[in-house]
Amino acid sequence: MSEEKNITSLSDLGEFGLIDRLAANIKIYNKSTGKGIGDDAAVINHGDEETLVSVDILCEGIHFDMTYCPLKHLGYKAAVVNFSDIYAMNGTPTQIVVGMGISSKYSVEAIEEIYRGIRLACDHYHVDLVGGDTTASRSGLFLSITVIGKAKKEDIVYRSGAKPNDLLCVSGDLGAAYTGLLILEREKAAFMEDPNMQPEFAGYDYILERQLKPEARWDIVKRLKDAGVKPTSMIDVSDGLASEVLHLCKESKVGCTVYEERIPMNHKTIQTAKDFNIVPCVAALNGGEDYELLFTVAQSDYEKVKDMEDVRIIGYMTADEGQANLITSDNCQVPIEAQGFKHF
Amino acid sequence: MSEEKNITSLSDLGEFGLIDRLAANIKIYNKSTGKGIGDDAAVINHGDEETLVSVDILCEGIHFDMTYCPLKHLGYKAAVVNFSDIYAMNGTPTQIVVGMGISSKYSVEAIEEIYRGIRLACDHYHVDLVGGDTTASRSGLFLSITVIGKAKKEDIVYRSGAKPNDLLCVSGDLGAAYTGLLILEREKAAFMEDPNMQPEFAGYDYILERQLKPEARWDIVKRLKDAGVKPTSMIDVSDGLASEVLHLCKESKVGCTVYEERIPMNHKTIQTAKDFNIVPCVAALNGGEDYELLFTVAQSDYEKVKDMEDVRIIGYMTADEGQANLITSDNCQVPIEAQGFKHF
Repeated sequence: MSEEKNITSLSDLGEFGLIDRLAANIKIYNKSTGKGIGDDAAVINHGDEETLVSVDILCEGIHFDMTYCPLKHLGYKAAVVNFSDIYAMNGTPTQIVVGMGISSKYSVEAIEEIYRGIRLACDHYHVDLVGGDTTASRSGLFLSITVIGKAKKEDIVYRSGAKPNDLLCVSGDLGAAYTGLLILEREKAAFMEDPNMQPEFAGYDYILERQLKPEARWDIVKRLKDAGVKPTSMIDVSDGLASEVLHLCKESKVGCTVYEERIPMNHKTIQTAKDFNIVPCVAALNGGEDYELLFTVAQSDYEKVKDMEDVRIIGYMTADEGQANLITSDNCQVPIEAQGFKHF
Repeated sequence: MSEEKNITSLSDLGEFGLIDRLAANIKIYNKSTGKGIGDDAAVINHGDEETLVSVDILCEGIHFDMTYCPLKHLGYKAAVVNFSDIYAMNGTPTQIVVGMGISSKYSVEAIEEIYRGIRLACDHYHVDLVGGDTTASRSGLFLSITVIGKAKKEDIVYRSGAKPNDLLCVSGDLGAAYTGLLILEREKAAFMEDPNMQPEFAGYDYILERQLKPEARWDIVKRLKDAGVKPTSMIDVSDGLASEVLHLCKESKVGCTVYEERIPMNHKTIQTAKDFNIVPCVAALNGGEDYELLFTVAQSDYEKVKDMEDVRIIGYMTADEGQANLITSDNCQVPIEAQGFKHF
């Protein structure tokens, strides 16, 4: 409208740039606000225990495709990715509120199926669904879930606590959710060409489940606690390893070195990436949606984490602020670059 | 897809029917969950103080029309309607998290303008913006705001506490937001026919502001507290007086009698309704978006509320469970019927 003003397209600024712009100029009024924008969850003080709050949105056509995403799985995933944000603060999710926008093409039974998935996740993780708002939307479906969790003040782990020489660890394996998505998209394309075809999903169970029905790593949080290890920083892997490593470096004002050969990947993930002519570690670095925990521990905790089940040390933090490097299998050093989900 | 199953359209079930269906079968696991779905906000116990949580969604094309809704006002309104939910519990809003879905037609500056409105509301009500999630959406814009508030356990007012003979009170005046919307829609239609026309908004400032930039009634909450009056039940008027009265009756298991001539309406609201051939009290009963507080007080508080600034006694509660009646100006008794916003 107004040619005088500078207009920036969303695609120019990107997701993280937009967040930075929006987070500027926000004032804090309440003593109970311990930590605002900038971590996996906000922290609200309530006497002995802190309240953690986080919100995540899933949009049809952006985060999921109704062609291959079963509604119940969608609900389950929408809840679990929120729980993951609270675990990434070393807390326990306790309540969620669910916002839903629905176009008229959906039946009530379809919505109930989504809620069934949300309830299943709540049952599995012992989280209470305490409220929501459901409304019409002009097109498609979106889910906005806000999760509330708790943690003792001294237990909370922020993104900002990593120190030089800390060990960088990750749980489970990476890249599987992304390769699962590649399979789903391939079969969808084939189906679009020939609606009589049968999708070929045999043998891909693991990576498909990682994409469609991820779990949040409460077990890792518990395992670390039981071992007496408090991570110095932590984040969940929602946007890909590269993006999360850079978040930890930025918030902690450190650098890091990651070894490609240490990045845990399932053999099916590796094989599928290769089938699609993708260097496997790129699926781990930029794929996203794994919902594993990426965390740092002090060198003194090395003995406790080195053989910990489902935890892998993949590198270490350095004093070179903002310098995150990958040491490739052939011993080259390449900078790790931000990617994030390019929604815009 | 499957002809075997019963398929219910969203329009058949309606908003409240859908909420009832979705709220069924939800289990509670955490001792801290004091009150789940079913009031203006959920209640979470944290020692001395309770935490209140509520979520509200605004969707382009459903709740707002970008043709006439300034972006900053949109942000302001989205925040304020959430604060209103916390005041309706007799609490104080303290934090919000903001979820936003944005189509690529919006520039970064447009989004910042929305955030400017949200921040303005936060500044005005002293609420902290502590987190959010921003994502692309395939079409249009939606805002999903979750508000967190606090209240002492003994101060919380639910929808369910009204008793027979309690006085039914409402703050401010009703129907203005709806008549403001009628004006905006009329001018939009005229503009669509002739883009050179100038919209005629002169003289409509009050009702336009009520639609575009509503305020939440923290002052009424404070006034009642200062007067030593704790309402027996309370709700904010978001869907129209009729709908909210029925909520109080249903949750409190009582009936009520409302006097049409007692319903507070601004003269501009009445005049505008008449210009559109709408019986003025219908704008108040079914219009919605006034964000006034509707509450009940014990008969013993009559002296304290009868002359309270900006509070009007409009009727009383009865023992006839589920029987809500309007006594019209010509002394006829008509049942008050549910309406709610028909989004679907």
